[in-house]
Amino acid sequence: MKLADIVHRSDTVPGRVFDWIVIGFIVISIISFSIDTLPELPPDYRAIIEFVEIFIVVLFTLEYCLRVATAPSKRRYIFSFFGIVDLLAIIPFYLSLGFVDLSTLRIVRVIRILRILKLARYNSAMLRFGKAVSLAKEEIVLFGCLTVIILYLSAVGIYYFEHAAQPEAFPSIVHSLWWATATLTTVGYGDVYPITAGGKLFTFVILMCGLGIVAVPSGLLAAALTKVRQDEENSESDGT
Amino acid sequence: MKLADIVHRSDTVPGRVFDWIVIGFIVISIISFSIDTLPELPPDYRAIIEFVEIFIVVLFTLEYCLRVATAPSKRRYIFSFFGIVDLLAIIPFYLSLGFVDLSTLRIVRVIRILRILKLARYNSAMLRFGKAVSLAKEEIVLFGCLTVIILYLSAVGIYYFEHAAQPEAFPSIVHSLWWATATLTTVGYGDVYPITAGGKLFTFVILMCGLGIVAVPSGLLAAALTKVRQDEENSESDGT
Amino acid sequence: MKLADIVHRSDTVPGRVFDWIVIGFIVISIISFSIDTLPELPPDYRAIIEFVEIFIVVLFTLEYCLRVATAPSKRRYIFSFFGIVDLLAIIPFYLSLGFVDLSTLRIVRVIRILRILKLARYNSAMLRFGKAVSLAKEEIVLFGCLTVIILYLSAVGIYYFEHAAQPEAFPSIVHSLWWATATLTTVGYGDVYPITAGGKLFTFVILMCGLGIVAVPSGLLAAALTKVRQDEENSESDGT
Amino acid sequence: MKLADIVHRSDTVPGRVFDWIVIGFIVISIISFSIDTLPELPPDYRAIIEFVEIFIVVLFTLEYCLRVATAPSKRRYIFSFFGIVDLLAIIPFYLSLGFVDLSTLRIVRVIRILRILKLARYNSAMLRFGKAVSLAKEEIVLFGCLTVIILYLSAVGIYYFEHAAQPEAFPSIVHSLWWATATLTTVGYGDVYPITAGGKLFTFVILMCGLGIVAVPSGLLAAALTKVRQDEENSESDGT
Repeated sequence: MKLADIVHRSDTVPGRVFDWIVIGFIVISIISFSIDTLPELPPDYRAIIEFVEIFIVVLFTLEYCLRVATAPSKRRYIFSFFGIVDLLAIIPFYLSLGFVDLSTLRIVRVIRILRILKLARYNSAMLRFGKAVSLAKEEIVLFGCLTVIILYLSAVGIYYFEHAAQPEAFPSIVHSLWWATATLTTVGYGDVYPITAGGKLFTFVILMCGLGIVAVPSGLLAAALTKVRQDEENSESDGT
Repeated sequence: MKLADIVHRSDTVPGRVFDWIVIGFIVISIISFSIDTLPELPPDYRAIIEFVEIFIVVLFTLEYCLRVATAPSKRRYIFSFFGIVDLLAIIPFYLSLGFVDLSTLRIVRVIRILRILKLARYNSAMLRFGKAVSLAKEEIVLFGCLTVIILYLSAVGIYYFEHAAQPEAFPSIVHSLWWATATLTTVGYGDVYPITAGGKLFTFVILMCGLGIVAVPSGLLAAALTKVRQDEENSESDGT
Repeated sequence: MKLADIVHRSDTVPGRVFDWIVIGFIVISIISFSIDTLPELPPDYRAIIEFVEIFIVVLFTLEYCLRVATAPSKRRYIFSFFGIVDLLAIIPFYLSLGFVDLSTLRIVRVIRILRILKLARYNSAMLRFGKAVSLAKEEIVLFGCLTVIILYLSAVGIYYFEHAAQPEAFPSIVHSLWWATATLTTVGYGDVYPITAGGKLFTFVILMCGLGIVAVPSGLLAAALTKVRQDEENSESDGT
Repeated sequence: MKLADIVHRSDTVPGRVFDWIVIGFIVISIISFSIDTLPELPPDYRAIIEFVEIFIVVLFTLEYCLRVATAPSKRRYIFSFFGIVDLLAIIPFYLSLGFVDLSTLRIVRVIRILRILKLARYNSAMLRFGKAVSLAKEEIVLFGCLTVIILYLSAVGIYYFEHAAQPEAFPSIVHSLWWATATLTTVGYGDVYPITAGGKLFTFVILMCGLGIVAVPSGLLAAALTKVRQDEENSESDGT
């Protein structure tokens, strides 16, 4: 069946063209969604955006019906990850038609961006990324746990040192976690920072120990990706 | 003896269940400890937290007694790292019962979080982390020393350039160390920064040289972890 | 033909001397261009800078004519990358002579800095850099895409959490992208940051997931560069 | 000659003890130098610090004389790197005795910290660091050049976008270099940042391209260090 091949497969030219058209509409939809939140947008533009939105939802609804109709197993497609994403991309619009005020529901539309990940199916780099994550999974989980523990201990420590001096900046351990997050990720907004000598010394110690831990996962991921590519090259050159 | 197996071993199903229950209570205890510091907490909630704290301390006391009672060697358990941590997790509560005001002692309770590290015993990633640290130990120590030297020289330099222009931001070399820490870790809170041309040029030079040094340890750790995993895989595939 | 060798080749001593003289004038030109924008520059200095600029443009014009005249294929040089850069480095000056006010055109002169890249021809490290980029190209593109998706989702999320509390800091998703950029690159200027509990928690989650993604490309590049150098060494030692 | 062995060699127990005593005094000297700059230091403490300084200078002078007296070749020691550092560590004190006001000279004393690097002689990690730097030298130089070019182009770009909107924050390209430094190193103090849409978009583009470049050298260094250690291990296991 030809239509099913275009809609569901991506190793044929018409299938790829179809996918790229869909992605084009996703990008248009995301841009129009973003512009829609601009506060000083003239009403004319807002009307255009609304029209674009309706047009795209209709297109996506047709596409969804087509996908369901041509799927080899309807049930499997509907309950697959991309099946649910495809549905969530259109359903908020129809719900907001029925009920008057559902503006918070509008944000669900942004889930459409996940449809771009379908491209990943062609992408050998994405496959390697998946392999690399599963290769370094245990270490990433471990460093995630260590990061959370360090963040918590940092928050407790800075609360201990700074609460008396800055009760409004560090009112509780829960609030101090915000400081810990901004500091150990080195974002450092500068909205909260230690002012006591003890708090500054503690920050120094925590940064010296913590930075090494927090920055390790990206290094692990880079190393795992390099290894996966290396292995692929080796197996290719063995086969030749 | 069955009870000892549950309490002290983690390679059996009941032993694992026991460990996870303990960890659950540690997490509850940490959360309640954090919420307790919230300044606008209603008295009702504070009463609940106090009850939770008493309940958990009683549980941890029972657990500690059980561990001591069932340990193959009582002395070895009591003076082991986790034996001391287990004791420090409960003793502040009992001390605060006897003496009226020991609020600073409360913070010792946070040491309970270290009990989570017991999980490390099952975790092969933690073992690899240990091996990686010992593999890269010399380099990490060297870069730690270099970091401290660079921080100190940065503080001296910025004091020299900025003290005259900003005597309240850079009153002394000791105070300038805070700027050096926030800058070379790239946190950059923005509470102190150079304003003179000389100070800015110096900051540029120090960042160009220093960033490479400060960021190296996490790269070393990532590389060492990758190597340790590689070696394990090689020895496994050799054995097969 | 001797003159062509000096002008176009860089493996002879006079050719190298010629190249370094040109680069010296490029650096002088860039410095004088930067100083020219200083607001409190005395008129005397500005006159000197103007003279330097005219002098350098005349030199570069002579050099360009020389290059065209001595090029083995005039057409190929004129339409080559460096041929166009060489022309763009002088043409704004002549255009500003004819028309009175073309101050925005002056900025085109800065393109001269690209002429420094000619040095890359001698530089084996630059060749290795090129090889490394092409080796890790797929991963770099993938992580570039992931970074853009994460930035967008961060902007949508923070807009959702912070718009009500800070309508002037997060007026729209488009404006929130600025916060997402400053946060996920860990620059953290501190001009916009979340103040609600939800926004802070969201920032924490985004940073935990996003930092690993954003920091991976530089690790990949470093690993690819190391591999390229390794391969070169191996092929050299094989040949010996 | 026994005294020469203690002073100049570090592979004997008395030689090591002598070195560590000298390092102890260097650390004391650096701490007292830092405390001396504290603005609110009581006069009593300042007197103690002055005494410590005189005491240490006398010790270092004796040590210097001892080193010269026992050196196998006096001339070679005096004009060696550490010979000059040893002399610079004491000479500012004697110059400040003769002339009344030489407070700026005092800062030269901080050069003493470089004497700590003598420890590097025992340190195999320091040797590996040296090897790693020479291994990755070409790439580090290349990325240093690229960083400077990117910083300059960023400064030109932001000047172009922000000068009109913020003439006091971006008065010239030279001043904009400060913003470029703080941004591309991700320090982000927040004293200067773009406010126009164009400037923010430009910052986004520059950060996406530039971060990969600026962060590469530390990754290269980490990889080179790992390789040097690996090679050492391989040659050791070959020899066994």
